Amino acid sequence: MESTVDRPRLSVQHRVLYAECDPFGVVYNVNYLIFFEHARVELMRAQGLSYRELKERGYEMPIIETGARFKKPADYDDLITITAICVKQTRTRLFIEYEVTRENELLTTGFTNHVLVTREGELRRFPDWLAEVFERRPQA
Amino acid sequence: MESTVDRPRLSVQHRVLYAECDPFGVVYNVNYLIFFEHARVELMRAQGLSYRELKERGYEMPIIETGARFKKPADYDDLITITAICVKQTRTRLFIEYEVTRENELLTTGFTNHVLVTREGELRRFPDWLAEVFERRPQA
Amino acid sequence: MESTVDRPRLSVQHRVLYAECDPFGVVYNVNYLIFFEHARVELMRAQGLSYRELKERGYEMPIIETGARFKKPADYDDLITITAICVKQTRTRLFIEYEVTRENELLTTGFTNHVLVTREGELRRFPDWLAEVFERRPQA
Amino acid sequence: MESTVDRPRLSVQHRVLYAECDPFGVVYNVNYLIFFEHARVELMRAQGLSYRELKERGYEMPIIETGARFKKPADYDDLITITAICVKQTRTRLFIEYEVTRENELLTTGFTNHVLVTREGELRRFPDWLAEVFERRPQA
Repeated sequence: MESTVDRPRLSVQHRVLYAECDPFGVVYNVNYLIFFEHARVELMRAQGLSYRELKERGYEMPIIETGARFKKPADYDDLITITAICVKQTRTRLFIEYEVTRENELLTTGFTNHVLVTREGELRRFPDWLAEVFERRPQA
Repeated sequence: MESTVDRPRLSVQHRVLYAECDPFGVVYNVNYLIFFEHARVELMRAQGLSYRELKERGYEMPIIETGARFKKPADYDDLITITAICVKQTRTRLFIEYEVTRENELLTTGFTNHVLVTREGELRRFPDWLAEVFERRPQA
Repeated sequence: MESTVDRPRLSVQHRVLYAECDPFGVVYNVNYLIFFEHARVELMRAQGLSYRELKERGYEMPIIETGARFKKPADYDDLITITAICVKQTRTRLFIEYEVTRENELLTTGFTNHVLVTREGELRRFPDWLAEVFERRPQA
Repeated sequence: MESTVDRPRLSVQHRVLYAECDPFGVVYNVNYLIFFEHARVELMRAQGLSYRELKERGYEMPIIETGARFKKPADYDDLITITAICVKQTRTRLFIEYEVTRENELLTTGFTNHVLVTREGELRRFPDWLAEVFERRPQA
C-alpha cells in the first residue's frame, strides 16, 4: 500500500448527537458515512474548490462504491475527529479514504469512490482544473 | 373543533427500525415527521394525484409550519399506524393532521401546513384541479 | 410575550450537508429539529450540566411537544446559526425556543417542551440542582 | 463465488420518500444502508427469530464491516425491492448480502458482516440456536 502522507487531507471535529445514536447507545453505523461527507466537503473547500462551486459549474461527483470498517463504537456526546484523505485519482475515478478517531484511538475507517457526471447524469473525465484540486499538497 | 370524520384520510403501517431509535430505546422524535411524510404521500396518491405527479407539473408544496405532541413512545420493532387527514384547505393553505397509533393506543399527534410554490419557489394559489384532490371523499 | 433577553441562550454554527437537503435543493424540514438538538445540548453544556451528565445521573428529558415555522429555506452548503433559548421553566416543564438564521436573516423558528423522567421512564419534578442549570444568566 | 441460490433470503419493498433523496433528486447513498437493515430484520423474522427477540435474550449483532456499490440511482417515489441473503456463517461471523432492484433492474448491491456481542459488548461465538436461524432453507 502506498503512503498517503503527502496526499491532500483534512480533519473536522464532530460532537455525537442523540439523533445519531441507536438503542445500543452508540453511533448508528450509517451515520459514519454522513460524517465522511462532512470531512470530504471541507477537504474540497480547503483545496480550493467547494462542492457547491462544482455544482454551480454543472457537475456532480456521485459515489459509485463505499465501504467502512467499524472497530470501536463512538458513544453519545463523544468528540470525534473525521479525516478525509484524497488517496488517488485517475482520469475517471476519485478515491477518498476516511479515518474516524477519538483522542487518537482509531474507531472507524472507510472509503468512497467517485465518478464525475454532468447535471444530466452523463459520465465525464475529470478535467484538469478539477484534477488539480485533488492533487495539491496540503499547506504546511 | 370541526369533525374530520368526512375528510380525506389514509393510514399506512410502519415497522420501527433500529436506525430510527435513540439511546433511550424508543423512536427519536424527528423521525415521526418522516412518518408523517409517508402517510401524506400515500394520502395524495389515494386521492388521485401523487406528489411525484405534482412535481412533474412544476409545483412543490413546502411545509411552512409543523408540530407534534408525543404522548407515548414507540419502541424498536413496534408496528405502528400513521394516519394522515386533510383537515382543511383554503386557496393558499393546506392543513394536514396526523395520528400515530400502536394497536389503537394513540402515541403521537401532529400537523403540517403547506403552501403551493412553483419549481422556482414562487407562491401560487391552489388551482381547482389541485384543490379537488384534497376535497374528495374517501372511498367507502 | 415576555422578553427573553435575559434568559440563558447559546448559538452554534452548522454548515448544511448534502445529506440534509432534499430534491428541492434545500434543507429537508425535519433536519431543523436535529439542528435544535445541537444547539440545546451545547446550551446545557455552557450552563454547566451536559445532557450526558444528566443521563449519567439517571435522568432523561424527553420532548413532549415540538413545533417549527419555516420562513425561508437554507440551501446546501449554507453556514447557518442555530440559537437555543431557555425561555421558561416550571417544576414539571422546560420550554426551549430556537432561531435559525443565515447572516442575520431569520430562516426558521421553533420550540421544544420537555419533561423529566427517570431511566425507567417515570415522571419527576425538576430538582433544584437541575432547575438552576436553566436559570443561570448567560455570561457577559 | 459460491451460489447463494439455496441460502436464506427475503425481499421487502420500499417506496422512496422525499426525506431520503438529495439535491440531485435521487436516493442519498447512506439511505441504502438503512434499507439493508429493513430487509435484514425481516429476513431474521421470517427465519424464526426477530432481532428484537435476540436483544431480549441479551445479545446484539453489530456490523463490523459494510460496503455498497451504486450502479443506478433510485428516484423519488420509486418502488424498490431490497433483498437480504444470508450468504455465509462461521462460528464468529455472519455475512449478509443485499440487492436493491427496481422492476428487475439492479440498482445497488451491498453487504454487512456481523459479530455477536452481549449487552455489555463482549464478543461471543454464535450459539447453535442462533446459527440455525441463518441456516434454515427458505420455505418454497
